[in-house]
Amino acid sequence: MTPQSEDFSAWYNELVAKAQLVDRGPAKGTMIIRPYGYRLWELLQAELDRRIKDTGHENAYFPLLIPESYLRREAEHVEGFSPELAVVTHAGGKELDEPLVVRPTSETIIGEMMAKWISSHRDLPLLLNQWANVVRWELRPRMFLRTTEFLWQEGHTAHADEADAMRETMLALDIYAEVARDIAAIPVVPGEKTPGERFAGAVRTFTIEGMMRDGKALQAGTSHYMGTNFAKAFEIQYTSEAGRLELCHTTSWGMSTRMLGGVIMTHGDDKGLVLPPALAPHQVVIVPIGRGEQGEQTLAAARELAGRLKAAGVRAHVDDRSQLSPGFRFNDWELRGVPVRLELGPRDLASGTAVMAKRLGEEGKEQVPLESLPELMPGVLADFQAFLLERATAFRDSNTSRTDTWEAFAEAVATGWASALHCGEASCEDEIKAKTAATPRCIPLAGEPESGSCIHCGAPAAYGKRVLFGRAY
Amino acid sequence: MTPQSEDFSAWYNELVAKAQLVDRGPAKGTMIIRPYGYRLWELLQAELDRRIKDTGHENAYFPLLIPESYLRREAEHVEGFSPELAVVTHAGGKELDEPLVVRPTSETIIGEMMAKWISSHRDLPLLLNQWANVVRWELRPRMFLRTTEFLWQEGHTAHADEADAMRETMLALDIYAEVARDIAAIPVVPGEKTPGERFAGAVRTFTIEGMMRDGKALQAGTSHYMGTNFAKAFEIQYTSEAGRLELCHTTSWGMSTRMLGGVIMTHGDDKGLVLPPALAPHQVVIVPIGRGEQGEQTLAAARELAGRLKAAGVRAHVDDRSQLSPGFRFNDWELRGVPVRLELGPRDLASGTAVMAKRLGEEGKEQVPLESLPELMPGVLADFQAFLLERATAFRDSNTSRTDTWEAFAEAVATGWASALHCGEASCEDEIKAKTAATPRCIPLAGEPESGSCIHCGAPAAYGKRVLFGRAY
Repeated sequence: MTPQSEDFSAWYNELVAKAQLVDRGPAKGTMIIRPYGYRLWELLQAELDRRIKDTGHENAYFPLLIPESYLRREAEHVEGFSPELAVVTHAGGKELDEPLVVRPTSETIIGEMMAKWISSHRDLPLLLNQWANVVRWELRPRMFLRTTEFLWQEGHTAHADEADAMRETMLALDIYAEVARDIAAIPVVPGEKTPGERFAGAVRTFTIEGMMRDGKALQAGTSHYMGTNFAKAFEIQYTSEAGRLELCHTTSWGMSTRMLGGVIMTHGDDKGLVLPPALAPHQVVIVPIGRGEQGEQTLAAARELAGRLKAAGVRAHVDDRSQLSPGFRFNDWELRGVPVRLELGPRDLASGTAVMAKRLGEEGKEQVPLESLPELMPGVLADFQAFLLERATAFRDSNTSRTDTWEAFAEAVATGWASALHCGEASCEDEIKAKTAATPRCIPLAGEPESGSCIHCGAPAAYGKRVLFGRAY
Repeated sequence: MTPQSEDFSAWYNELVAKAQLVDRGPAKGTMIIRPYGYRLWELLQAELDRRIKDTGHENAYFPLLIPESYLRREAEHVEGFSPELAVVTHAGGKELDEPLVVRPTSETIIGEMMAKWISSHRDLPLLLNQWANVVRWELRPRMFLRTTEFLWQEGHTAHADEADAMRETMLALDIYAEVARDIAAIPVVPGEKTPGERFAGAVRTFTIEGMMRDGKALQAGTSHYMGTNFAKAFEIQYTSEAGRLELCHTTSWGMSTRMLGGVIMTHGDDKGLVLPPALAPHQVVIVPIGRGEQGEQTLAAARELAGRLKAAGVRAHVDDRSQLSPGFRFNDWELRGVPVRLELGPRDLASGTAVMAKRLGEEGKEQVPLESLPELMPGVLADFQAFLLERATAFRDSNTSRTDTWEAFAEAVATGWASALHCGEASCEDEIKAKTAATPRCIPLAGEPESGSCIHCGAPAAYGKRVLFGRAY
């Protein structure tokens, strides 16, 4: 496999295929998510779904095919999405009177239904979420990161006023930041997008940004406050307690299979994937070693151990591919990012131990009594999860610079992120991008108030705090 | 609401809307699954998914958009699906070189990938499943039963030989029958389809058929043995232990949101839905009663009780809509099919009891000590679940006749099912359908060996056993 240091992009492309996460689909930019990759997605989904439900949202399902005219009702929205649409013009053997677009996102069709379902202030807030596939035509596809079709959840909510809608917008962002940090072990920076980077049709867009091991940023989830833009376009209205007809304030927010690309690029190394235990399909793989009768004995012991690990809540897997050499199997599970490998040979079995090898963090292997493994393992996995987050945080922090001169800024964004003051002008953002390939990733929520002049043009700084810049996926 | 006896179809259409299960989508025949309906689907999904995984299958995800040419590779398959296809001809602002069909089912694209992934007998069996949306253009849509887009799982597996593929085909059918009976409380009849009713491209098709309360049949899940048809079309081959290149034998099997239509039509009555506890979003609804301070006390007690019921593994919900009258709320939960309602008024609270009303099965209400409810409720729900299955089984059996004369047959299929011998000729099936609207639903697996002459044309009977006929959805 190409080393990261040589060509990060080639490393990524080779790894997602070799680790059997994905394969290319026949239609341009489409992706097949293979079982190992899909299991990662299911585990991420379960964590997200639980948090979405616990905060009072309900799942629903809206149609894939949306009349083209719906998209035109919100001017910025159609402008943003038109170039990416896949359009059904024929169905049931006939040309359709009105073409149907394959949903690129569902604000329009959900807005139409919200207008039907909401009449009184008692119907608010309306808190919906949908797990779905969406299609956005991709000219430069990249597995997980930018694919013509991807899987995601899209939250869509309607509220009585701006304050309630903004609370919701930030709640969704909090959920994303928590899942990123606690589950994916990605120390994301939550912040607001600058106006030029907003979602098409949004009044305010918030994001979580993670730093990949090549120093680039990945937008890993976004949450939008739509103001009354979609409410006006779709007539989403309610009668207030005072009896007046008012426009709703709506939000939308999404996290997608793109997040899995973030996991790969945040933790992976030249040996392959490194998976956070919270998302690893197999947290522990047991490799029984030996031929003939000895092989049967170690296999039986491995299965027995796996049963005890599962009972302790650990996702354990026995690699029973006895036709493959132990070394080949060790490498395979390293490539596939399994946090802990247990090797179980005849001599280990005789001494009642297994050899424990962690995917990262500590040099060398350790001899551990079989008896103690089920009790021990949850702690080992928790430590591994914490180690990944700490390592990624240290990497991010050591590659992020507070910069107050253009030279320092340009140097910082060549390999990482720069925190700098900016004038807020789109034309100035464009010039920075042309010179350095860096874009404003976000205005971090945690930023301290600060004023001064723009890192690039010297005009008075906007936003009242620093902006995080970096090259991005 | 229109009574079932007056117009079953109107009853159904009104109920799915009034119970807030679904709404109509803007594109022809599409359906919006509202939160209450989607929760039903999620609960069914969880039961199916667990069984699919427990039997060694892995979930994966294949693209929505399939090159049109893929469908043409299997002659019967394209003939069967062509009239129902939705076709993307434009994407990314341009006309596509080759149109893409929105998947109506995924045998073709999965077959293409199986051919890539399988090379040795060691790669077999390959046991895949996918949860996805599919699109089949519907001219006569019916919510849940026939919609242009629906949600389903589709299992796709490849095997070394016919015996292994047939074992798989029957395993999937067993899973479906078990989920139908134990979870949806639908006493389905598993059997084989006659040749004229086979899936497009299959060698053998198996089905589970349920009887709805209007006496019609609903095909609620199908499992297909494809022989080597798709293996030939997509070159799905493996090298055997003997070193020879062999074609795989493949299967596919699916269960969809249609199943929810089956739940509604198997158990519902003129008051509304009746949900089996295993699928009910709310198994128990507690309605606190009273105004002012008394209302606050019963609400607090209801919440406390709901907490204890949840701790006992019961899906309990508190209806805190104090602005609505108790009677309105009782009717609402009857309409929405909640198995058990607990009414909690000030006098109940004073006596430490609640009034328990079951949705079906026993007349009248019962006074039950609050203290004992959490311990009691799992048994009450299990009894309710069992009662629904028994009632549906009795209904099915009393509306199924063994018929040996044409007159008896015609009379039986006017209101239910007929078990009869048949010659197996498609033209004879067609004539029966023209005269009675009944079609062969399946050749029940459990049928006893029997020979004789065709119920319609008198020719020697085929299949060696009776065929089940009925009008169908």
